[in-house]
Amino acid sequence: MKDRRELLAILTRGYGTRQRLVDVQASQDERGVGIDRVGIKDFRMPIRVLSRDDIEQQCAAAVDMYVSLPPDVRGTHMSRFVEVLQEREEPFTAARCLAICHAAKSRLNAAETHLDVEFEYFVQKEAPMTGAVGPLNYRIGISAYAGITDDLLLSVTAPATSLCPCSKEISRYGAHSQRCQVQASVRFEGDLWIEDLIETIESCASSPVYSVLKRPDEKHVTEKAYENPKFVEDIVRDLAVALQTDDRVVWFAVKSENFESIHNHNAYAEIVRDKRE
Amino acid sequence: MKDRRELLAILTRGYGTRQRLVDVQASQDERGVGIDRVGIKDFRMPIRVLSRDDIEQQCAAAVDMYVSLPPDVRGTHMSRFVEVLQEREEPFTAARCLAICHAAKSRLNAAETHLDVEFEYFVQKEAPMTGAVGPLNYRIGISAYAGITDDLLLSVTAPATSLCPCSKEISRYGAHSQRCQVQASVRFEGDLWIEDLIETIESCASSPVYSVLKRPDEKHVTEKAYENPKFVEDIVRDLAVALQTDDRVVWFAVKSENFESIHNHNAYAEIVRDKRE
Amino acid sequence: MKDRRELLAILTRGYGTRQRLVDVQASQDERGVGIDRVGIKDFRMPIRVLSRDDIEQQCAAAVDMYVSLPPDVRGTHMSRFVEVLQEREEPFTAARCLAICHAAKSRLNAAETHLDVEFEYFVQKEAPMTGAVGPLNYRIGISAYAGITDDLLLSVTAPATSLCPCSKEISRYGAHSQRCQVQASVRFEGDLWIEDLIETIESCASSPVYSVLKRPDEKHVTEKAYENPKFVEDIVRDLAVALQTDDRVVWFAVKSENFESIHNHNAYAEIVRDKRE
Amino acid sequence: MKDRRELLAILTRGYGTRQRLVDVQASQDERGVGIDRVGIKDFRMPIRVLSRDDIEQQCAAAVDMYVSLPPDVRGTHMSRFVEVLQEREEPFTAARCLAICHAAKSRLNAAETHLDVEFEYFVQKEAPMTGAVGPLNYRIGISAYAGITDDLLLSVTAPATSLCPCSKEISRYGAHSQRCQVQASVRFEGDLWIEDLIETIESCASSPVYSVLKRPDEKHVTEKAYENPKFVEDIVRDLAVALQTDDRVVWFAVKSENFESIHNHNAYAEIVRDKRE
Repeated sequence: MKDRRELLAILTRGYGTRQRLVDVQASQDERGVGIDRVGIKDFRMPIRVLSRDDIEQQCAAAVDMYVSLPPDVRGTHMSRFVEVLQEREEPFTAARCLAICHAAKSRLNAAETHLDVEFEYFVQKEAPMTGAVGPLNYRIGISAYAGITDDLLLSVTAPATSLCPCSKEISRYGAHSQRCQVQASVRFEGDLWIEDLIETIESCASSPVYSVLKRPDEKHVTEKAYENPKFVEDIVRDLAVALQTDDRVVWFAVKSENFESIHNHNAYAEIVRDKRE
Repeated sequence: MKDRRELLAILTRGYGTRQRLVDVQASQDERGVGIDRVGIKDFRMPIRVLSRDDIEQQCAAAVDMYVSLPPDVRGTHMSRFVEVLQEREEPFTAARCLAICHAAKSRLNAAETHLDVEFEYFVQKEAPMTGAVGPLNYRIGISAYAGITDDLLLSVTAPATSLCPCSKEISRYGAHSQRCQVQASVRFEGDLWIEDLIETIESCASSPVYSVLKRPDEKHVTEKAYENPKFVEDIVRDLAVALQTDDRVVWFAVKSENFESIHNHNAYAEIVRDKRE
Repeated sequence: MKDRRELLAILTRGYGTRQRLVDVQASQDERGVGIDRVGIKDFRMPIRVLSRDDIEQQCAAAVDMYVSLPPDVRGTHMSRFVEVLQEREEPFTAARCLAICHAAKSRLNAAETHLDVEFEYFVQKEAPMTGAVGPLNYRIGISAYAGITDDLLLSVTAPATSLCPCSKEISRYGAHSQRCQVQASVRFEGDLWIEDLIETIESCASSPVYSVLKRPDEKHVTEKAYENPKFVEDIVRDLAVALQTDDRVVWFAVKSENFESIHNHNAYAEIVRDKRE
Repeated sequence: MKDRRELLAILTRGYGTRQRLVDVQASQDERGVGIDRVGIKDFRMPIRVLSRDDIEQQCAAAVDMYVSLPPDVRGTHMSRFVEVLQEREEPFTAARCLAICHAAKSRLNAAETHLDVEFEYFVQKEAPMTGAVGPLNYRIGISAYAGITDDLLLSVTAPATSLCPCSKEISRYGAHSQRCQVQASVRFEGDLWIEDLIETIESCASSPVYSVLKRPDEKHVTEKAYENPKFVEDIVRDLAVALQTDDRVVWFAVKSENFESIHNHNAYAEIVRDKRE
């Protein structure tokens, strides 16, 4: 049986090398259905990200990149996505992601291009009393779009502490607290840095979180959170107010997911506002 | 030190029990910011789901349920969400999720309610040649909304096989294949069952996948996939064509994520169409 | 080009059907390397689990099942794993998983069989003051092994509240609390139910968590946790003491992972004891 | 009510600041239960990793670090873990992780220390025919232990292609293939680099995977995988043979998880060998 197939393989050998390899993707499609988004998802690559202090940080990014495809073309050319992503020598900033979208649009001859980049970003953070320093990780997302118009969205997710106002109010002592994940996504004008959004987010929770806390620091954050109780509703409202007054921000979506310490499910709230309307 | 705090605790004992516990959530909010969505996220509960054959299947659901909150109210009442979810005695169907939304809307006095339910659903599936039977798991999502109008969305994600047409065409033998996750989300009129969407999805890939495959079955699916090569673009286009011609479907979003066996990243495509436009 | 391959396909048609399909797995292996574990991983199937109150609960299980393979056999027969798993009509209990292991051992002619079953299990739980009822989800694991001897391990992971003793002690008011995941894995003799382990675990944290908490309940759990502060070390120690005194338990491993509300990392502790030593 | 608590807060103000903050962790424990492992889990920090070519790569690591705790001490000092992790200026290599373990052992006055570091590592990889270059991501783990003796384990998980020998043998054409994750964990003597293990792993699958594949490359990898079919059993056996003959390796564990394209579950195999026995 093996012999038979090997014979056939020999028969066909060379086929495909003597002639130019067919471009199946470029062939005509008869179904008449345009595709909104097609491309690569969860492509991992190292990127360099510029901090507000002009320092480069190398990050491991998860990249999704899509183009629109007209009804009459059968497929896109996936390898070109990876090539375009690697052409840029400069560090990634939100604004520079648009340039990649435009390069992909032209290289793939597409009407629309979408680029989503997600990565973990570190900030060296000082403990509030002792000043002990440790890295804290934030989740960053950049979404760029090039079509008839451009679009750009920067998103920061920061861990924080929330302490329940109701629990504090009704209890003789104590109040349940928990870690929460607070996200701010913005469309903006001018310069807006990851660090700016981190600071805004952290100012809206019961307390920021830290990597190193010595005893005086732990005392400080415990008391601060107790003095500063916040429902998940309070966190997103305070964040909405803060972004409402930031003139660089023209659109925002804020959300908070609180990993309630008294439940096995989470509390969640979300506000979306377009200041241009 | 202990003594001092215990003294204070004794001082305050009874406080909060002699009087009605304050409803902090119901207090007035001064920030003037309405909240789009607030509620519970990733709440787990057992639900019973009705199959097309009128058989009940118990599933473990992850439930998100949100209401809108007017600018002047400080907080929602999270425990009522869980109470409303438990009131329904009937099995879950897409249509009955709307009833829960309406109950929550009235119980929480909200302008809008969102309900997202996700669960794993099993179908006993026969191997194509030997008929050997095994359970196959699908990911189901139901999104219901009650506001000024209602909205309802059913979503099925099915695993399948894709085999690359380009790889087949240019190679002397073989063609790379991989598992893919294909999703169809629909707004619909009349009766549309989970099983209906599963069948539609599976007919659009290179081959369905199975839990039990004996040798004659494995031969069959290998050859079928080879005879039926599909780009990620082909899968979503064929699925779009199928849903376009299903009169029950008034809106659809289809996507496929293919876990390419020759890459460490995935191929992805997506089409969204509103047939009412 | 198409024509050529189609021609070849026609040439080979029927090949493999006229004759018995070769059992490649059963062929001789020359490398002389035995395999410790080979089989299926993350196979999903619905199972029925018997509760302590003799009620059946249908759960969605993730199943890993492996056999050992002698040096001279090339491959195992994966489809038989799924067949064996489906043969059992009775509900799953820890003890009955061993029967499946023995069936697989004999069916696959193996020296050793491993079976790992993981699923989400629900308990209807009453709030501590109002008695309001809601489902709470626990993660259950059963590991069975059949070789020269048998082995059986039951594992329960329960969410709970931990409140930091240091934070309470050094702060003027408040104390940070957080959700934690506490796991007890045991080897045992006689009858030991999932519900038994849940109760033991929950008695060792600062407070259990609940799905529905009305205001008097929230006051109760807040105060209870504050009165009952526990380091991650305290939780595993108290759990170790409890299992040490449970005569059914002959071996245990306990761990707790606390999702600290003041950090973005977790606190973790683990104790393993063999009472037979 | 607010007034009353604020009054109490004023009463207690200063308490805890006039005096040294109590070290609750250092207090005596009466339960008589030693703890095997206690520390921090999923702590994220940027690390620099030295490549075989002596180039530094910045990676985002997830770090678990534990110590053993004697029966009479109530708690460990978690903040010191983070401090010790940050003291090292040199890039991370497997060997240097041991130095961190020893520093932690002495700083925390522990009998045993465990350090587990996991991160994504990139290699610029050339396509097999065109030489087109793209980054490929691998999952690296380093486990270090310092107790009475030392221990060190390096683990590399690489994506690869597997093509089923049975499917190829019994089918008229084609053969199902899929992405797999192959892991080699080793204890070793002398110099052994991440890149060494990557090369060994990739030589044992049906084909490596790549980030950029132009058409001639795709033809090459398709045909190579078809010519080189491997069961999950073959992959771990070939890897075991390769590590058996590598004199630097004194112990190894190899596993492969294949995301079968014809099933929704995975095939898995594992071999562990201690060459010192």
